[in-house]
Amino acid sequence: METRACVLHAQEDVRIESVAVDEVGPRQVLVRIGAGGLCGSDIHYYWEGGIGTIRVTEPIVMGHEVAGTVEAVGKDVTRVKPGDRVALNPSRPCGKCKFCLSGEQQHCLEMQFFGSAMRKPHTHGGFRDVLVAEEFQCEPVGDTVSLGEAACTEPLAVGVHAVNQAGSLMGKRVLVTGAGPIGALLIGAVSHAGALEIVAVDLSEAPLKAAKAMGATTVINASQEPDRLMADYSADKGYFDVVFECTGVGAVLRQAFPVIRPRGTIVQVGVSGGADIPVNALVGKEVRLVGSHRFHHEYAVAARLIRERLVDVRPLISATMPMERIAEAFTIARDRTSQMKVQLSFG
Amino acid sequence: METRACVLHAQEDVRIESVAVDEVGPRQVLVRIGAGGLCGSDIHYYWEGGIGTIRVTEPIVMGHEVAGTVEAVGKDVTRVKPGDRVALNPSRPCGKCKFCLSGEQQHCLEMQFFGSAMRKPHTHGGFRDVLVAEEFQCEPVGDTVSLGEAACTEPLAVGVHAVNQAGSLMGKRVLVTGAGPIGALLIGAVSHAGALEIVAVDLSEAPLKAAKAMGATTVINASQEPDRLMADYSADKGYFDVVFECTGVGAVLRQAFPVIRPRGTIVQVGVSGGADIPVNALVGKEVRLVGSHRFHHEYAVAARLIRERLVDVRPLISATMPMERIAEAFTIARDRTSQMKVQLSFG
Amino acid sequence: METRACVLHAQEDVRIESVAVDEVGPRQVLVRIGAGGLCGSDIHYYWEGGIGTIRVTEPIVMGHEVAGTVEAVGKDVTRVKPGDRVALNPSRPCGKCKFCLSGEQQHCLEMQFFGSAMRKPHTHGGFRDVLVAEEFQCEPVGDTVSLGEAACTEPLAVGVHAVNQAGSLMGKRVLVTGAGPIGALLIGAVSHAGALEIVAVDLSEAPLKAAKAMGATTVINASQEPDRLMADYSADKGYFDVVFECTGVGAVLRQAFPVIRPRGTIVQVGVSGGADIPVNALVGKEVRLVGSHRFHHEYAVAARLIRERLVDVRPLISATMPMERIAEAFTIARDRTSQMKVQLSFG
Amino acid sequence: METRACVLHAQEDVRIESVAVDEVGPRQVLVRIGAGGLCGSDIHYYWEGGIGTIRVTEPIVMGHEVAGTVEAVGKDVTRVKPGDRVALNPSRPCGKCKFCLSGEQQHCLEMQFFGSAMRKPHTHGGFRDVLVAEEFQCEPVGDTVSLGEAACTEPLAVGVHAVNQAGSLMGKRVLVTGAGPIGALLIGAVSHAGALEIVAVDLSEAPLKAAKAMGATTVINASQEPDRLMADYSADKGYFDVVFECTGVGAVLRQAFPVIRPRGTIVQVGVSGGADIPVNALVGKEVRLVGSHRFHHEYAVAARLIRERLVDVRPLISATMPMERIAEAFTIARDRTSQMKVQLSFG
Repeated sequence: METRACVLHAQEDVRIESVAVDEVGPRQVLVRIGAGGLCGSDIHYYWEGGIGTIRVTEPIVMGHEVAGTVEAVGKDVTRVKPGDRVALNPSRPCGKCKFCLSGEQQHCLEMQFFGSAMRKPHTHGGFRDVLVAEEFQCEPVGDTVSLGEAACTEPLAVGVHAVNQAGSLMGKRVLVTGAGPIGALLIGAVSHAGALEIVAVDLSEAPLKAAKAMGATTVINASQEPDRLMADYSADKGYFDVVFECTGVGAVLRQAFPVIRPRGTIVQVGVSGGADIPVNALVGKEVRLVGSHRFHHEYAVAARLIRERLVDVRPLISATMPMERIAEAFTIARDRTSQMKVQLSFG
Repeated sequence: METRACVLHAQEDVRIESVAVDEVGPRQVLVRIGAGGLCGSDIHYYWEGGIGTIRVTEPIVMGHEVAGTVEAVGKDVTRVKPGDRVALNPSRPCGKCKFCLSGEQQHCLEMQFFGSAMRKPHTHGGFRDVLVAEEFQCEPVGDTVSLGEAACTEPLAVGVHAVNQAGSLMGKRVLVTGAGPIGALLIGAVSHAGALEIVAVDLSEAPLKAAKAMGATTVINASQEPDRLMADYSADKGYFDVVFECTGVGAVLRQAFPVIRPRGTIVQVGVSGGADIPVNALVGKEVRLVGSHRFHHEYAVAARLIRERLVDVRPLISATMPMERIAEAFTIARDRTSQMKVQLSFG
Repeated sequence: METRACVLHAQEDVRIESVAVDEVGPRQVLVRIGAGGLCGSDIHYYWEGGIGTIRVTEPIVMGHEVAGTVEAVGKDVTRVKPGDRVALNPSRPCGKCKFCLSGEQQHCLEMQFFGSAMRKPHTHGGFRDVLVAEEFQCEPVGDTVSLGEAACTEPLAVGVHAVNQAGSLMGKRVLVTGAGPIGALLIGAVSHAGALEIVAVDLSEAPLKAAKAMGATTVINASQEPDRLMADYSADKGYFDVVFECTGVGAVLRQAFPVIRPRGTIVQVGVSGGADIPVNALVGKEVRLVGSHRFHHEYAVAARLIRERLVDVRPLISATMPMERIAEAFTIARDRTSQMKVQLSFG
Repeated sequence: METRACVLHAQEDVRIESVAVDEVGPRQVLVRIGAGGLCGSDIHYYWEGGIGTIRVTEPIVMGHEVAGTVEAVGKDVTRVKPGDRVALNPSRPCGKCKFCLSGEQQHCLEMQFFGSAMRKPHTHGGFRDVLVAEEFQCEPVGDTVSLGEAACTEPLAVGVHAVNQAGSLMGKRVLVTGAGPIGALLIGAVSHAGALEIVAVDLSEAPLKAAKAMGATTVINASQEPDRLMADYSADKGYFDVVFECTGVGAVLRQAFPVIRPRGTIVQVGVSGGADIPVNALVGKEVRLVGSHRFHHEYAVAARLIRERLVDVRPLISATMPMERIAEAFTIARDRTSQMKVQLSFG
């Protein structure tokens, strides 16, 4: 059996090709994909041929934000049945290494992650009409939400995990820097976790509008009001209990230090090669700066939040086009002034 | 009443002068100082006229690592009596601001810290023959240890606080970068807290020898074996549970990232203006980087550790000279190849 | 100046009397009370003359759940102005003891708590037309919600504090035993804190209806379905991450052990003299059983939740009557089949 | 191949019998046992035929505190080689259930624990001349300590795990109630973890003497001074930061409440069917009562502590006799006035 898939061959060279579909094993599930979102990493792969030191060196089926409908299940599968609509967890940890046996699966030494060029051979992804997944990757999403919404489970899980890195947000004052798709979904998670104030900062209006829709109580366009954050929130050693830094830009991370309160937490979500941080402020204020990488059990939590619209992700989906137009999708996805999450449709 | 004191007037200009002694209030204590240690900040004040943006702009009595003997007490004092030997906590938090009322006195908005040029007027310090202190600043150290040992309470408290920033060290693998006086005393605290392995790195032999004496299980001279840390401890995503970074040097902090395990903690103790950190490693390994600033209740813990020689600080004290020779003391204190803690004697 | 007040003289002997109003000090506020809720402790005081070993031994102005409107402020007050509507925090910690200086004000050695017979002389409460409070006790509640809603700030703060004792609830499965006023408001806090499932258990329909309104996802009437909790939630060593035990009944606390997951947390909110707990389950499952006592900074959080109706407390207020009818109010407040929060009106 | 083993057939009926030795699999190790300690559970099995609801219903090889010397290893074994001396971790978690994949192996749904009658068929134990163990169960103990000391790894691991349940003990004040073998070894772990004061309470002198040897700073014989704990440690709402309750006796647990400080932690180590606890104190002081069950990664930590004599367990071993005299060993082990840890020798 074969299926159509979006295969990246090299920078700016993505093709719709026919690829083989594996046999469905006893604890596996055949899923017909309905929707798939373009992630920042996909965009880097397409336009730059990689992210930092991770390079695409062989053809790879793209995509790790996908949802679909179960078509068939292996004989030992109990979790889902044909007809069920599911979000697909792109993580396949080995279940045997020291990290898996410590509940730290996101650091698995043998992680297989959909559509990732980190390992060789690369792990193929989910931008394809049908797919064989492990039973444990299938998270039911019910019949109410669209598959496009369901395909937001993965980036929402990133936000839920970041929230968990911060500890309880109940009654807390939170700053989110960068309100692109990850930042905006994270704001939905922060709001759901009981934060009292959520200030979102970005350079463009479209993300800030999405931030508002997701629960931000105040938004700041730093291109128009570059000094407002400092002016309003730096008194008495800083205002915010928690900062989620979603841009990966060193200059933005530095801005968090004067406005975070002593002993506050900065969760670094955005990735970059390096950033120059003010060590005197880190030490003098005893700031806790902690990274957040992907997710593990948070995928199931995110699926449930979407399934019951406890976090309503619809304001995020800014465009949907058929898989054949993936190159065009990559083009519009780069426009932060108009686009948040661009999705493909399949099947 | 007057007393002799070490007054810094400007860079490289310290003078022995007579200064006034305050009246002893009902909850105050008159202490005859016996010993005082030169701290890194004192050395910066003397040789550079300040530390970073903190500048000495008026004459200041130096010194915040002091111990002595109680001579007289105010009428309401119950904690100590004449003849008691005490270490003097240099911190006087206001007891009223939001940080004091949250148990975060090290961030007090009105902190008075002995011998600090941070505020104006500067807060005078303890390098003087007699001193009036608040009762709560007096920590009894018993009759067994020397006043020189007792004067190590403050830098040991810095180490104890850093240990507390890391959480439990029981059974943990610990790296300490920089084994000067702060790093070496911190190693004593780390060892006392139950760490299983303590690897110390420095560029000189004298600090590494002290590190060994304080409890390091392995020492690495990075000037002789620059690649050893990476070679021995970076496999499987990193070896150490906790790193204490005591140099404040960005290049050293960066070296911690490959050798710390995922979700491990780096406690930043050393101060500097800035450091370039690898954000991709911080995020990908979910490292927790947390600053450590001074101490609060840890001063009493450190006093007890010294009093009972649970941490034996004697290997640290490398030279003692009378207060009149303070300028000479600053000169030898700069020589990291031979000196650890240089102390003055008084009275 | 004098004002009317509800003074309890002895068991079942409450009188409307005229009492003196203090001068308004420079950091004090004169508040005209609008609404006051009857708490469980008030009900015990009235019907039993005390709670356990705490006995009413002298006349005491009752009440600690009150809200009103500012009439006048002392000269140094900046936080509120005449006309502001405020919830009144009934806690006056001393600000000087070791607990206050550790951020643990709820354990203050000299706590003055409105309408409490714990200390002698008793601390008078807020069931009166006008009252002089400290500025720091006044929490603005805006102009949108009723003073009756505002008077629910105190019991909601109890719930918020209990939530904080549990740590983050994001994505968690929660059981609440006992859905009276405290339990039901706590459910509002639990829901706001991001819990995924909230199962509420009670013996009566009225509390369960309120529980539903406050956010419970499942309710169990244990008088009708005594075995359901055990049948549905004890498989694989237990289902719930967190249990909030609000009844204080030992038999109910015991029921939590089979249905909590290993390493889960039971927060004990309800008070009683004693309870027989299964030590083998506590140990074998490593259950964490932690008490929750009043609140501190959570009062401000609760006021904000009510002010913005992030937690809508209106389903809780089941009856309101003028202060003159306080004895009648105590009578109906005992009827758990019909009443949740019974309030008085003043002024 | 066959070997001699101590087989319990019924209450007070233990026999030395020949049992089969399994083939050594590729990741298994053949160990010649040298020493084995009698645990409280062994004593219950022997004298009472079980512990509470756990009953010995079929012949079982006893023993879970054993150490020996490697005789042969399977072809894939890398961790140990013939001649190595090892302590044997009695836990064999399944590695696949939700608890194993969360790093909570002590709650494994399919745990096989040496010499335990909890499951059926019972899991055979280590009181035998030779044994086949999994590679991961073998913890090297070096050549310095005796195999008797090495056989104390398991009960010391129980203490290390209890310490981890309490969080950091650095600078803390600790009470240990019950100084039998578990309590005394736990004191060794508490001392190693940096506690500042350790008060031990017991009814007999032998355990208190052992407690002193293991690091207790104060010992109280409660049969001679029944009121001292309360008299010395209950002021200002209680003295101790952490209590380790090792007796399982309700009356002893209750005594912890007046002497623990508000927000302190009681770790329950001793097991019993039930205990009546003062709920008003639990709530009013916000005490955290947490169970501690066995250990997981702490076994390796304990082995290292013993190997390097960081915790010297020799004061605990009060008698050693050959396996043939196991019935006699059970008799003397009951005498708490003279015996601490009674061990068998093998091979």
